[in-house]
Amino acid sequence: MQFQFSVEELQGIVQPSHINGVFQGKITQISNLREAKSGSLSFLSNPKYSRDVAHCEASVLLLPENFDHTPKENQVIFFCKNPSIALAKICQYIEKLNADPIRSEIHPTAMIHPTATLGKDVSIGAYVVVEEGVRIGEKTVIDSGTFIGKYSSIGQHCKIWPNVSLMSFSQIGNRVTLHSGVVIGSDGFGFVAVDEFHQKIPQVGNVVLEDFVEIGANTTIDRARFASTIIGQGTKIDNLVQIGHNVKIGKNCIIVAQVGIAGSTIIGDRVTIGGQVGIAGHLHIADGTQICAQSGVTKNTEPNVTLLGSPATPYRDAVRQFAALTELPKILKKFTKFIKNRPADFREKP
Amino acid sequence: MQFQFSVEELQGIVQPSHINGVFQGKITQISNLREAKSGSLSFLSNPKYSRDVAHCEASVLLLPENFDHTPKENQVIFFCKNPSIALAKICQYIEKLNADPIRSEIHPTAMIHPTATLGKDVSIGAYVVVEEGVRIGEKTVIDSGTFIGKYSSIGQHCKIWPNVSLMSFSQIGNRVTLHSGVVIGSDGFGFVAVDEFHQKIPQVGNVVLEDFVEIGANTTIDRARFASTIIGQGTKIDNLVQIGHNVKIGKNCIIVAQVGIAGSTIIGDRVTIGGQVGIAGHLHIADGTQICAQSGVTKNTEPNVTLLGSPATPYRDAVRQFAALTELPKILKKFTKFIKNRPADFREKP
Amino acid sequence: MQFQFSVEELQGIVQPSHINGVFQGKITQISNLREAKSGSLSFLSNPKYSRDVAHCEASVLLLPENFDHTPKENQVIFFCKNPSIALAKICQYIEKLNADPIRSEIHPTAMIHPTATLGKDVSIGAYVVVEEGVRIGEKTVIDSGTFIGKYSSIGQHCKIWPNVSLMSFSQIGNRVTLHSGVVIGSDGFGFVAVDEFHQKIPQVGNVVLEDFVEIGANTTIDRARFASTIIGQGTKIDNLVQIGHNVKIGKNCIIVAQVGIAGSTIIGDRVTIGGQVGIAGHLHIADGTQICAQSGVTKNTEPNVTLLGSPATPYRDAVRQFAALTELPKILKKFTKFIKNRPADFREKP
Repeated sequence: MQFQFSVEELQGIVQPSHINGVFQGKITQISNLREAKSGSLSFLSNPKYSRDVAHCEASVLLLPENFDHTPKENQVIFFCKNPSIALAKICQYIEKLNADPIRSEIHPTAMIHPTATLGKDVSIGAYVVVEEGVRIGEKTVIDSGTFIGKYSSIGQHCKIWPNVSLMSFSQIGNRVTLHSGVVIGSDGFGFVAVDEFHQKIPQVGNVVLEDFVEIGANTTIDRARFASTIIGQGTKIDNLVQIGHNVKIGKNCIIVAQVGIAGSTIIGDRVTIGGQVGIAGHLHIADGTQICAQSGVTKNTEPNVTLLGSPATPYRDAVRQFAALTELPKILKKFTKFIKNRPADFREKP
Repeated sequence: MQFQFSVEELQGIVQPSHINGVFQGKITQISNLREAKSGSLSFLSNPKYSRDVAHCEASVLLLPENFDHTPKENQVIFFCKNPSIALAKICQYIEKLNADPIRSEIHPTAMIHPTATLGKDVSIGAYVVVEEGVRIGEKTVIDSGTFIGKYSSIGQHCKIWPNVSLMSFSQIGNRVTLHSGVVIGSDGFGFVAVDEFHQKIPQVGNVVLEDFVEIGANTTIDRARFASTIIGQGTKIDNLVQIGHNVKIGKNCIIVAQVGIAGSTIIGDRVTIGGQVGIAGHLHIADGTQICAQSGVTKNTEPNVTLLGSPATPYRDAVRQFAALTELPKILKKFTKFIKNRPADFREKP
Repeated sequence: MQFQFSVEELQGIVQPSHINGVFQGKITQISNLREAKSGSLSFLSNPKYSRDVAHCEASVLLLPENFDHTPKENQVIFFCKNPSIALAKICQYIEKLNADPIRSEIHPTAMIHPTATLGKDVSIGAYVVVEEGVRIGEKTVIDSGTFIGKYSSIGQHCKIWPNVSLMSFSQIGNRVTLHSGVVIGSDGFGFVAVDEFHQKIPQVGNVVLEDFVEIGANTTIDRARFASTIIGQGTKIDNLVQIGHNVKIGKNCIIVAQVGIAGSTIIGDRVTIGGQVGIAGHLHIADGTQICAQSGVTKNTEPNVTLLGSPATPYRDAVRQFAALTELPKILKKFTKFIKNRPADFREKP
């Protein structure tokens, strides 16, 4: 995104504890410590990069309050309680500068069914299709090319990016974000084998996304076989995730990219699921469970445990197993030799 | 989806062996045993939930014929040969109630090339693009925003959901379903290194989907380098699956979400592939092979084996290896101590 | 794709070292050695299929120069320095035959913002949306249903397939290919926990794709938190891949389907990443690293190493560990018995 700030403007946004140094030019980009140059703003948030501060060429540098650094020529230091939060404030400011104005307009090419009801200040982009009986809450923005299936409802202040497919009867809460390519409410994967033929089990439920949910690009969430697939309030889901039918996810979970959750599994609140994790069907994942990337979960979990591996085991056990496996080839060689040298001790009894 | 049934209507749909109890109201939802309340229909299909029947508040309850349960007040029991099939009948009924009427209309915004030929009663939604030489069979429904590339053919009674991309020369059989976001016939991933540059190998084949195939949301199936990538009759593929170029899949396979199958692999009939499995290229997977979730298959398989793990091994071996790995840290500690106590037995010869 | 060649036409395209045999008909398909029949062209590129040559029914057969084979009746052999390159030449020819003519036209339904600037001979399909300030280079083709967000720039000779979503401020180089369903520049997955609520960290950077990059169907590349997510020149990415925010990928890498790369990881040049690999965030993957399919990379790598496993280890170590694991159940049984027979040697000291 585009921006141009003077030091004074940045000072107004960040309100640092104190500042040191002088820079007369404009800040037009944000960079990490190593790549920053004149015109860049940079920052130290992770102490592991502390050594990069000395060589940093940034014109404005956000540092922790008690960090010992004297500005170079044409460099200003903002000493801040929390440089991460200071950076976030600047980014929020940039985001607002670059945001689309709320147009509150329905593009003339949008196909809105006459029975659909739209709240105040709804914006709908080009080539959107809104079917029969849909309800859309005020200030929601639906970008171009998106499909909204019949009898779906979408709350207030939602943002639906281009080319989303939201199938019939979905219920979307307030302040929900759906990124491009998301598919909500496609049929659950349910078949019953009749002889060798897989006969489709009708999927007559829907999908419910509660308030403040965010769904990443090209993620798919299947409609329930009956009742609802539910994503709880405040849960954030990354890109290319698959959520099976009748899954229920609690509040404020974090689900990283390419996770797959099989049908009817119930996930508690505040669960964190790392990238590429698979979770089998019909399980209960307790509140606060943490699942490391690429794990495969095959059993119910106790609250607040951390799991690793496929099949997933408690983190410390898994780490010990990995360590043991690393030693195994060497030890096995020793033991095999030992067996060979003492045939009597290892002879199978007839 | 929406519905409202009296007990008599449900009795007509399900035709239970016998019934017991009285409920005068309307059934408006289907719920599992624990969540059912007045106005819900519930069912017992998996015996592991038998204990939940006693406390179930459903107004109508589908139970196996010889299950011992006396209805509560305002509760009706339908005793059925197979409660799962009874439920499926109800769901099919609900699905039909909520289905779009076959409109057999071409939306005025659909861009249909004059050389395309459309069968009787084809429905095409808003903003669909149908290119040169495409053929579409009777009663096929193509939803809004979908792209059908030149010289593709689509059979009869197919359902193509919104925002699908079907590339040129694809051949789709009868009664095929493509869910939203599916991409069929994108280029295979083929490059040849010339010095360090990866030069593209043209992908001039196509994709063939035989009759009764279903493809889940956002799944991608690449066109062949030459000849065809083929998905056999009755095979069902879940969401976010990747099928590489020149793969051939047999009949009546089940492929769960997020599976990846690399180029030129041949898969037999009735193969079941669990979620997130990866299968290397140029392999033969024999008829009836079962591959557990997250496995990585690197070798050809014999018919009807079950495989687990990455690299995948026969199921029983894999389970034994996982069990052994669990014990390994403890045993290794013992053995290391044993070695230490008997240096003479383990000394390396010079 | 469709074609029909006489032997003479093929000879002109391939220019074989010498030819043997006679075939008067037309070649209308390319097949592998086992499936070829009259009218097919086939080829031997991988020596492991040499035995199939004798039984091959192809009408035209591309063989290595010194391969010993006498043509059957109605069969012509083209002896070639490199049959793979000969085949590629034919496929390139077929591809050109079937390519869309460069129409250099803007479809009347495309919504092009008046501030967008389009180079010479740009083609834009039906229902494309091009927002404010976009720049598109000459001879670039943008297919139907695609969204191009504001202030994006796209170079010359690019091909963007149908239903792509390219978000604002993206910078696309020359001769870049984006397949259907690709999402470029969706928000990075960044949240900061405030109590239990995950507050969104604004993602104000963009995505940069350098020249000659190709991105597979339904792949997602997130915009940077600040600065840019960068895919280097000549890098080829397969389908359903996830690239996190602020990732930087070098030149001429190959990234196979369903790979996930977490935020801020830096990947060197000529790196090869197999299918379904996961790479953790904030890592440095050195030039020439090769990562086998399904591996999970958790540490920085040295140049030109090959890695396998999850967690990933050097290839030879991983293979030894897998081999040891295979033997483990048997050996463990022996060792457990040994311990049992010699309790004194293994008694824990108090």
